[in-house]
Amino acid sequence: MVNIELIKELCQKTESKIVMVVVDGIGGLPYPGIGRSALEEAATPNLDNLAAASSCGLVEPVALGITPGSGPSHLALFGYDPLKHEIGRGVLEALGVGLKLGPSDVAARGNFCTVDEFGIITDRRAGRIPTEENRRLIEGLRSISVEGIEVILEPGKFHRFVAVFRGQGLSGDIEDTDPQHVGERPKDAVPRSPQAADTANLINQWIAKVRKALKEEYPANMVLLRGFAGLPEIPTMSQAFKLTPAAIASYPMYRGLARLVGMEILETGLTIKDEVETLKTHFDDYDFFYVHVKDTDSSGEDGDFARKVQVIEEFDSFVPSILDLEPDVLIVTGDHSTPAKLKGHSWHPVPFLIHSQWVRPEGVKEFGESMCANGNLGVFPSLGALPLALANALKLGKFGA
Amino acid sequence: MVNIELIKELCQKTESKIVMVVVDGIGGLPYPGIGRSALEEAATPNLDNLAAASSCGLVEPVALGITPGSGPSHLALFGYDPLKHEIGRGVLEALGVGLKLGPSDVAARGNFCTVDEFGIITDRRAGRIPTEENRRLIEGLRSISVEGIEVILEPGKFHRFVAVFRGQGLSGDIEDTDPQHVGERPKDAVPRSPQAADTANLINQWIAKVRKALKEEYPANMVLLRGFAGLPEIPTMSQAFKLTPAAIASYPMYRGLARLVGMEILETGLTIKDEVETLKTHFDDYDFFYVHVKDTDSSGEDGDFARKVQVIEEFDSFVPSILDLEPDVLIVTGDHSTPAKLKGHSWHPVPFLIHSQWVRPEGVKEFGESMCANGNLGVFPSLGALPLALANALKLGKFGA
Repeated sequence: MVNIELIKELCQKTESKIVMVVVDGIGGLPYPGIGRSALEEAATPNLDNLAAASSCGLVEPVALGITPGSGPSHLALFGYDPLKHEIGRGVLEALGVGLKLGPSDVAARGNFCTVDEFGIITDRRAGRIPTEENRRLIEGLRSISVEGIEVILEPGKFHRFVAVFRGQGLSGDIEDTDPQHVGERPKDAVPRSPQAADTANLINQWIAKVRKALKEEYPANMVLLRGFAGLPEIPTMSQAFKLTPAAIASYPMYRGLARLVGMEILETGLTIKDEVETLKTHFDDYDFFYVHVKDTDSSGEDGDFARKVQVIEEFDSFVPSILDLEPDVLIVTGDHSTPAKLKGHSWHPVPFLIHSQWVRPEGVKEFGESMCANGNLGVFPSLGALPLALANALKLGKFGA
Repeated sequence: MVNIELIKELCQKTESKIVMVVVDGIGGLPYPGIGRSALEEAATPNLDNLAAASSCGLVEPVALGITPGSGPSHLALFGYDPLKHEIGRGVLEALGVGLKLGPSDVAARGNFCTVDEFGIITDRRAGRIPTEENRRLIEGLRSISVEGIEVILEPGKFHRFVAVFRGQGLSGDIEDTDPQHVGERPKDAVPRSPQAADTANLINQWIAKVRKALKEEYPANMVLLRGFAGLPEIPTMSQAFKLTPAAIASYPMYRGLARLVGMEILETGLTIKDEVETLKTHFDDYDFFYVHVKDTDSSGEDGDFARKVQVIEEFDSFVPSILDLEPDVLIVTGDHSTPAKLKGHSWHPVPFLIHSQWVRPEGVKEFGESMCANGNLGVFPSLGALPLALANALKLGKFGA
């Protein structure tokens, strides 16, 4: 059982340093013809040595059988119950393209679509227009202004874009304008609650102007918006856990997630080497470091087992450099599993190790799914990772006398 | 951690098929002089092979240390929190004798008892009259009518029977008429809430007529009723989990429990062979099959270790026939443990295996209590069985982005 409220009450500021490495989608399944997972197949002498001197287990991101997205699975590792702090789809998309959101911004996912002469949707994706065409259209739409809001637009791939509406007192409590079916008209933005009425009205004004501007742009002659959301109200890690946290992540979405919980975002490069260099450079300045390794997940999603093995081996080679910094606590885990066999996120619990001078090492000889399943920590919620880190960093006072 | 509400939100209809075999009371304890449980002692080559290609663990039906009845332990396996969905004792008894209950029926357990000339109870079980005598008396009581209700009676063994009161707007919120002690009078049926007042009144009219009818039937000259209950309000598995479920069970109570959660009840015979044949016949028509094996429990209750071993071996011989159907997910577990040494249900967690192409096999070499305790799934609530089944059948969408 994990009790975050109690952890918040007991935590205290100390000099000790925690490094949490999130190897995205590190967990997997035995690969057909190989019979071992990518983590088991990879040659990881450094992780194996570390595991032998660590306490090991498997973490479950949300609940038994649940396959999590990156948002909830990261929040859990950062010490936030993902069922209590839901991140709207629009917000995640905005974070994913690197947009910084303010407290009353409302973000949404956008699609270009095709409507006929009567305004009826004939293609919800506008024939998946080329990304270049998308960029030209977005450039044009940026000149549209509506009094009372600023609209920030960022093109994505093909027909996709992100829209952020910025203004006073906005609310994201608005229904999708995307009816999800062809043969219907785009819906108006409809408020779900009275405080979103003004926002919906402003968004509808913007959509009306967009419709006019796109009139001659067949097939991308209209837009659909969905997943309206503002930033969730969430205490920072400094407020909640008295940490001074920093994030080292090369992909925008993960920087965005870290920013959500008040981490300082450190400039870094695209490689694991760059990230470890960044950790070294800033090691004196913070007491909690989130280090994100992305390509284990991307290769898993691509079904590229060999590449996933390679990324894990690459990460392994930097483990000694991290240990050289002598963090008081080092955690290596993932936000979820991404088996190459399944080509996507999965519900399987994720290998976890925690190293500090205060763990009970347990003779795990290899950092992998099977060995971690036999680790002393057993299967436990990801939400327990931060409490364990704080305990091992001696940052938690005693409960009761 | 199991979160059924989230599972309900994420589940979706697919073609994949789940078979859940509930080997009743399969769990046990080392038997004196043998040192192994019935499951460990049985020669189960097929289950052992299956376990080696499955993910294993132990399920806990209700909570640590709790010995469950068949009602809560089955509900948990079907994905219903047994603490939120209590099934009244009378309802279970009615299901046990094969009565079908309607939504406003009220069921109760009945005892024949003996009262003296002052109406004071002298024997709560009427000297355990022969079952034949019970049948004769019940036949007579069936002719009693009370305006406003129909009364359905079914004799049990010795002094026991089941009564179902059928009518408009009935409520089972009524206290037992059995005072639980000799030397007291049978109580009136007393409503616990205003909406049960009319029902209690009708039942008291019926009891008054029964008292008259039994006047000369010493020792069975009165009746006691307890466990009044109506059907619990419970969503069907189709509503809750988007499944099209069917039950294959040779004993009435288990068919009744399955009917409670909206399963289709398939006609079958008394043997495991009959049940597996039924599974084959209907395999194309449903996407969830509950298959119940009863005699492991009965033999455990009888303290008949050898018989329990034999039933397990018999079930084992049909495992290949089930696998031949190529279900996407196969679960083998029990609703609770019934150690022959204890001659009754027990609180011990129950061996569990789940087989699908998406599990991490873990080299468990034998399907048994000790090996399952080392399985990757660890000890987890029975309520997690259905979520795991749905996940492995790829019937759950992703949570969050």
